[in-house]
Amino acid sequence: MNYDQIFDAAIDRLHSEGRYRVFIDILRNKGAYPNARCFAGHNGPKPITVWCSNDYLAMGQHPKVIAAMEEALHDVGAGSGGTRNIGGNTHYHIQLEEELADLHGKQGALLFTSGYVSNDATLSTLAKILPGCVIFSDELNHASMIAGIRNSGAEKKVFRHNDVEHLEELLKETDPNVPKLVAFESVYSMDGDIAPIHEICDLAEKYNALTYIDEVHAVGMYGQRGGGITDRDNAAHRIDIIEGTLGKAFGVMGGYIAADKRIVDVIRSYAPGFIFTTSLSPVLVAGVLASVRHLKASSVERDGQQAAAAGLKAMMREAGLPVMNSTTHIVPLMVGDPVKAKKISDILLAEYGVYVQPINFPTVPRGTERLRFTPGPQHTEAMMRDLTSALVEIWDRLELKLAA
Amino acid sequence: MNYDQIFDAAIDRLHSEGRYRVFIDILRNKGAYPNARCFAGHNGPKPITVWCSNDYLAMGQHPKVIAAMEEALHDVGAGSGGTRNIGGNTHYHIQLEEELADLHGKQGALLFTSGYVSNDATLSTLAKILPGCVIFSDELNHASMIAGIRNSGAEKKVFRHNDVEHLEELLKETDPNVPKLVAFESVYSMDGDIAPIHEICDLAEKYNALTYIDEVHAVGMYGQRGGGITDRDNAAHRIDIIEGTLGKAFGVMGGYIAADKRIVDVIRSYAPGFIFTTSLSPVLVAGVLASVRHLKASSVERDGQQAAAAGLKAMMREAGLPVMNSTTHIVPLMVGDPVKAKKISDILLAEYGVYVQPINFPTVPRGTERLRFTPGPQHTEAMMRDLTSALVEIWDRLELKLAA
Ligand SMILES: Cc1ncc(COP(=O)(O)O)c(C=O)c1O
Ligand SMILES: Cc1ncc(COP(=O)(O)O)c(C=O)c1O
Repeated sequence: MNYDQIFDAAIDRLHSEGRYRVFIDILRNKGAYPNARCFAGHNGPKPITVWCSNDYLAMGQHPKVIAAMEEALHDVGAGSGGTRNIGGNTHYHIQLEEELADLHGKQGALLFTSGYVSNDATLSTLAKILPGCVIFSDELNHASMIAGIRNSGAEKKVFRHNDVEHLEELLKETDPNVPKLVAFESVYSMDGDIAPIHEICDLAEKYNALTYIDEVHAVGMYGQRGGGITDRDNAAHRIDIIEGTLGKAFGVMGGYIAADKRIVDVIRSYAPGFIFTTSLSPVLVAGVLASVRHLKASSVERDGQQAAAAGLKAMMREAGLPVMNSTTHIVPLMVGDPVKAKKISDILLAEYGVYVQPINFPTVPRGTERLRFTPGPQHTEAMMRDLTSALVEIWDRLELKLAA
Repeated sequence: MNYDQIFDAAIDRLHSEGRYRVFIDILRNKGAYPNARCFAGHNGPKPITVWCSNDYLAMGQHPKVIAAMEEALHDVGAGSGGTRNIGGNTHYHIQLEEELADLHGKQGALLFTSGYVSNDATLSTLAKILPGCVIFSDELNHASMIAGIRNSGAEKKVFRHNDVEHLEELLKETDPNVPKLVAFESVYSMDGDIAPIHEICDLAEKYNALTYIDEVHAVGMYGQRGGGITDRDNAAHRIDIIEGTLGKAFGVMGGYIAADKRIVDVIRSYAPGFIFTTSLSPVLVAGVLASVRHLKASSVERDGQQAAAAGLKAMMREAGLPVMNSTTHIVPLMVGDPVKAKKISDILLAEYGVYVQPINFPTVPRGTERLRFTPGPQHTEAMMRDLTSALVEIWDRLELKLAA
C-alpha cells in the first residue's frame, strides 16, 4: 500500500484534464470595490478590477455593515466561544433569526455556519426524520444540496433542469403514501436562469410533497425587500423551506433556512451539522443584521445591479461575444473548453488587470466551461467598455468565434 | 401523509426524554470575560459568570486579536465574496495556512469554515480517494468525525475508547492490502482524558495505516507553541493529518487540517465541503492570525488555564463533589441524569448568576449526563470558591450524593 502514489495519481488526473486549480492571491480594497490588489507573481501588489465576486451588491464594504461589525467586535469580542447550545448563543443570533424569518414571511429561521452547511444539514436531517422519503432534485442543483441528499440516504429522483413535465412524471410514478420533498434553486448561478417556482409548487400541492428552495443567488437581490425570487413572485408562502446564504449579496458569511416553527425546531434539535459546531461569530452576525435591515429598506443596490447586468450583456452581445441566455444579474460567457477558459482568464489578469475566474468541471458540466461575470452597482460603464474591448481583442488573438 | 404530525412526534420524543434544548440568550462583555449579560426571562439584562465557554484562553477578547480584526475590517471589508477558487482567496488565507503548517511542523495546511466541516470534508474525501479504505475510529469520536466517516461510505471499525489492544485486534484482522486510516482525538472534550498517541502511532506504523488526529480541544493550549498534545508529546511528525479548530482556544471561528503537501492538495482539489462554499471572512482570518502568532510565543495563558483547572478540581474534590477523572483543563462533574443536570444548571443561573450548560445525550452517552466546567486564566479563585459553595448547596438541596 503506497499512499503517496495514490494521492499523486489523484492530482495528476487534474493536471492532465487541465483543471488543476491555482488560487489567485488577492486583497480587495475596502471603499474602492471592485478594485483590489493582486499578490500573485513577483511584481508585488498590483491593482486589479474584480469581475467575479459574489459580494454582488458590495454590502461587504457598506459603512453600516462595517460599523455594526466594529461595534460587536468591541462589545462582545471575536468568536462566540461555543455551540448554540453550549455557551455560543448570543442575542445577535436570536435577533438575526427573527429578522430572516420576517424577511421570508416565515415563523422561524435557523442560522448555520455557511449556506453549504445549511443545505447539507437540513436536507440530510429532513429526509431522516421522514421515513421512506423520496427526494426530487433538479439536475443542476448545487453540490451542497447533492451532498445533503446523498448523506440523507433517501432515494433520489433527478428531474431535468427546470422541466416540470419530467418532475410530474417522477412524482406520478412514486407511491402516494411516502413522504416527498422537491428540492431546487431559484436562480441557478452558473447559467443565470430561474426556476418555474409556481408550477413546481402546483405539482407539490397536487402530489402532497414538501418544497425546498435554495435562494442563495437571489436573497438580497430580488423582491421589494430582498427576500429573493419567492419575494418578487409572491411565492414564499407556497414554499416549505427557503434556504439562503449570508456570504453573497448580504456580503458577510453564514447560511440559514426559514420555515415554519415546527420544521425549524426539528432541524435545530436533530441536525448534527447545526448542533455540534461553534456558532457563527457574533461579529459576522451583527454585520449581517445591518446588511439585511438595510436591503429590506433600500432598493438602490438592487436597481444598480440590474442596470449594470443589462448594460454589460448588451455591450457583449453587440460585440458578438457568446453571452449565455441569462435572465438575471449573472453574465456568463460560453467558452466550452477548460484550457481556453483558463487562458482567457490568465491573459485578462496579466495584461488587462481584470480578474475573472474560469469556471470548469465539476462546477459546470464538461464542455460548458465558461467565464462568469457578476457586474454590480459599483461597476462603471467605463469599466464595462474596457472589459468588453479586452475580451474582443483576446477572442481575436485566440481565434475564438464571434457572432456575425 | 401528514408532515406536521411526523415533525411534532420528533419534537415530542425530546420533551419526553427531558432533553429538549432551550438556548440561553447571552452576550459576553468584552474585556470583562468571564462576565456576561443574560437576556433570558423578563428581568432584562442580568450579569452572569460564564463557566462553559470554549473560548478557553479568552483569546476572543485579546487586544491583539481585536485590533487585527478591526484592521482587516477597514482594509478589505466584511466577507470574502467568494469560494477559495472564485474570488474568495485572500492574502490573509494564504498567510494563515502557512502559519498553521508551521505550528504543526507540516508542509501545508488548509482552512475550512469550521472544525466540523474540516472533519466531515477531509474524512469523507480521503476515504473516497483511497479505494477500499477501512477507517478505525475511537468510539468516543466527535459527531463531525462520525459524519465524515459515514459520508465517506468506507467500512468503519470502532475501537473501544483509547484501547490500543482492541485497536490492534481490529487492525490485525483486516486485509493487509487495503488502505487504512486510524481516526481519533487528542483531548476528549467531555471527559477530559487524552489518547495514547505514541502507542496508536506504533500500531499505525506496524500495520501501515494513515493517522488522523482531532486536536480541536488541544490546539493553542498544549505544547511549547500551542501546537496541541502532539506538540507537547513530540508526536506531530508521526501523525499524517492533524485537524484543529479556530473557534475554541484561538477564540474566533473556522477549522483546518495540517499535513504534507500532497494530502493537502488532494483535499483542496476534491473535497466538495472545501470547494463549494464561501471562504472564511478575511476579518476572522486576520483575527486568527494574530491569535496563533500570539500563542506561539506566549505561555502565560496556557499556564493560567492549567493553574485554574487544577485549583477548581482540588476545591471540588475537597468539597466531595463528583469530579470526573480529567487529566486536562476540562472539569466535568458527573450527574448521571438529564433532568437533574438541567435542574442544577437552572438553579445556578437563576439564583447564583452562574452559567454552565448541562451536557445531555447525544453529546454524551445516556446515563452519563454531566456539568462541564472550563476554567480559564480569567477565572479568579474567588469565583471558584463561590462556584464550589453554590454547587455544594444545590447538591444538598437536591439530595444528591457527596463523597465522604
Ligand atoms: C446554489 C448555491 N447554494 C449554496 C451555496 C453555498 O453557500 P455558502 O457559500 O454560503 O456556503 C452556493 C455557493 O457557494 C451556491 O452557489
Ligand atoms: C472534538 C471536536 N471536533 C470538532 C469540533 C467542531 O469544531 P468547530 O466548533 O470549529 O466546528 C468540536 C466542537 O465543536 C469538537 O468538540
